[in-house]
Amino acid sequence: MIKKHYLLSPGPTPIPEGVLAAATHPMIHHRTPDFSRIFMDTVTGIKNIFQTKNDVFILASSGSGAMEAAVVNTLSPEDSAIVINGGKFGSRWAKICRAYGVSVREIVLEWGEPYTKEQLSEEMKKNPDIKAVFSTLAETSTGTAYDIRGYGEILTRSDAILVVDGISGIGATPCPMDKWNLDVLLSASQKSFMVPPGLAYISFSQKAWSLVEQSTLPKFYFDAKETKNSLNKETSPWTPAISLIIQQQEALKIINHIGLDNLITHHRILGEATRAGIQSIGLELLSKRPANILTAVKIPSGIDGKTLVKTMQEKYKAYIAGAQDPHKGEFFRIAHLGYMDGFDILTALSALEMALEDMGYSFQKGVCVCTAKEILKENWE
Amino acid sequence: MIKKHYLLSPGPTPIPEGVLAAATHPMIHHRTPDFSRIFMDTVTGIKNIFQTKNDVFILASSGSGAMEAAVVNTLSPEDSAIVINGGKFGSRWAKICRAYGVSVREIVLEWGEPYTKEQLSEEMKKNPDIKAVFSTLAETSTGTAYDIRGYGEILTRSDAILVVDGISGIGATPCPMDKWNLDVLLSASQKSFMVPPGLAYISFSQKAWSLVEQSTLPKFYFDAKETKNSLNKETSPWTPAISLIIQQQEALKIINHIGLDNLITHHRILGEATRAGIQSIGLELLSKRPANILTAVKIPSGIDGKTLVKTMQEKYKAYIAGAQDPHKGEFFRIAHLGYMDGFDILTALSALEMALEDMGYSFQKGVCVCTAKEILKENWE
Repeated sequence: MIKKHYLLSPGPTPIPEGVLAAATHPMIHHRTPDFSRIFMDTVTGIKNIFQTKNDVFILASSGSGAMEAAVVNTLSPEDSAIVINGGKFGSRWAKICRAYGVSVREIVLEWGEPYTKEQLSEEMKKNPDIKAVFSTLAETSTGTAYDIRGYGEILTRSDAILVVDGISGIGATPCPMDKWNLDVLLSASQKSFMVPPGLAYISFSQKAWSLVEQSTLPKFYFDAKETKNSLNKETSPWTPAISLIIQQQEALKIINHIGLDNLITHHRILGEATRAGIQSIGLELLSKRPANILTAVKIPSGIDGKTLVKTMQEKYKAYIAGAQDPHKGEFFRIAHLGYMDGFDILTALSALEMALEDMGYSFQKGVCVCTAKEILKENWE
Repeated sequence: MIKKHYLLSPGPTPIPEGVLAAATHPMIHHRTPDFSRIFMDTVTGIKNIFQTKNDVFILASSGSGAMEAAVVNTLSPEDSAIVINGGKFGSRWAKICRAYGVSVREIVLEWGEPYTKEQLSEEMKKNPDIKAVFSTLAETSTGTAYDIRGYGEILTRSDAILVVDGISGIGATPCPMDKWNLDVLLSASQKSFMVPPGLAYISFSQKAWSLVEQSTLPKFYFDAKETKNSLNKETSPWTPAISLIIQQQEALKIINHIGLDNLITHHRILGEATRAGIQSIGLELLSKRPANILTAVKIPSGIDGKTLVKTMQEKYKAYIAGAQDPHKGEFFRIAHLGYMDGFDILTALSALEMALEDMGYSFQKGVCVCTAKEILKENWE
């Protein structure tokens, strides 16, 4: 029996064939007008997705590198920052800040819990010296969306900047940088951008840039001023990841053809279909404010979570993601992120039904897939 | 007239077709046994090329990122270091050290001048507090090789570590890490490793690792201890540049088929042929200790350097490199690095002859190409 592999993880995500093929573009030199055109075309495409008039910098790093860039370029030793930590990637903000000696007021949320703008407003009043608030658009470890728009409203009334990890969320959920008054926004190539990992994107508002001018934390590779100087010359300060940028340019053609609003709507529909399917067979969502990047599902009682994930991955070749530390085995995550369609979701839910059946979970067979299919069909265009 | 493009620059270098094609490998997830096998296979391949028993870490960054990693992982604030600066990339060591507050004794050499182990020995005696010596195996801006073996001899008698930027040199010129007692060695994917840019490689000796244990410079993305913990689990701490690693695995098959010694010999022969060709028509080499990665050639009097490079690049589509600041226009660089063969060299020298003729340089036509061809033919196997 032939068994194809299905990538249903929230990064890396599936790559369109044309984007895979673009990686075979002959290697060209990065200090040439030809490459500058590709580079600036790609920068423009990312700016459109970030919905910003600010510069966008392309880094040769994973998203974590851009997170470090956000910290080291805006802060100085002994600055204080709020970190909204709702999961593994929220927690990463705190780790980076502490690695550089920044004082952290860490708001540790239960995984899947929201955090309101009113809560942030209270916290800001209690901590008037805060220089920056670090937040997450859509937390990959839990599939939870945060009220970035609301945080933006609060922080426009403050001197503090709002820094947003949009690594998984951008392209899948609304996040207009300028309209929402975000000060630092970053993302990475292996999510809705439909490209292999290796590129990160970061943008600074004018308000953030005034902190960049003052920042004294040590930096070199991620130095935003160097990067800006180079961008002014239509290049990057260090050797760029040429083939990935060529692939991003190709992927942007696909994204532009779809249109950003349609891409976000697409993600919303896939998310709704997945959640409806999951709940139709009595499974529970982890998140109280689900994001449209992935659906995190609690392991039902009587089922071993690790075995379920392993069965999905190894027997059915449906590569969903398990839960991360410290919640391993407690839930699983089905991504609906990037270059995926409705049939991918139905495949995932079919595999899930089969795996649950293998493990003796009691449910009405076919209902999960059918429920999702209905929602997809209603929205089929 | 059809005009193909020829990439004759010292990074990026031409990519073998099989390695280009490997970029179309379907995207797989990085937290899987399948990817771990590719990852560890690649780590082993790089270790063999570094000729070390130490761990080798694969970073998603350009070579400059690995240079920063070398500094921030081994040093602490107010440490002192010697930087041997023979060009643009030697100078980068000093910039990184200063960005982190490390005190730098910078030895600024004329571009193309060697630096002997005796000179280093004297310098060490004068500066007994030195924690690290930063050096370059083969300086890309000048095509000069430094006596890394000799520096290793000097520093084994000292507590200071020897840090070597092998970005362009590794694979093209001998540099056995363990045998020569090098403490930190690093390189990048876009040179002899025959892969697009975006990956860097770094290894620490036991002596260097004891500094890593004590180092208090701030770091996060490049934190070697995190990277080592992850390597022990056959993975990387952040999302790796998956497609580039798959390409590196493919390129290593080619390199292993050639054999490291043969690869170095190949570079030596291409270098000798190029230099002989250049000198046969009265042109002068910039370097007094030429490396086999590229040949830097002084612009003869009466010829405008920038126009020569532009003619080579635009009219003949032979993408050689010009000189970098502050020596722009004074010389040009023909690379013989990575996936290039003897015919590439003859193409480069043919284009050079044509361009020189366009510009009115007086020489016996054909001699440059012929001289190089003779040397290539003698060594053809």
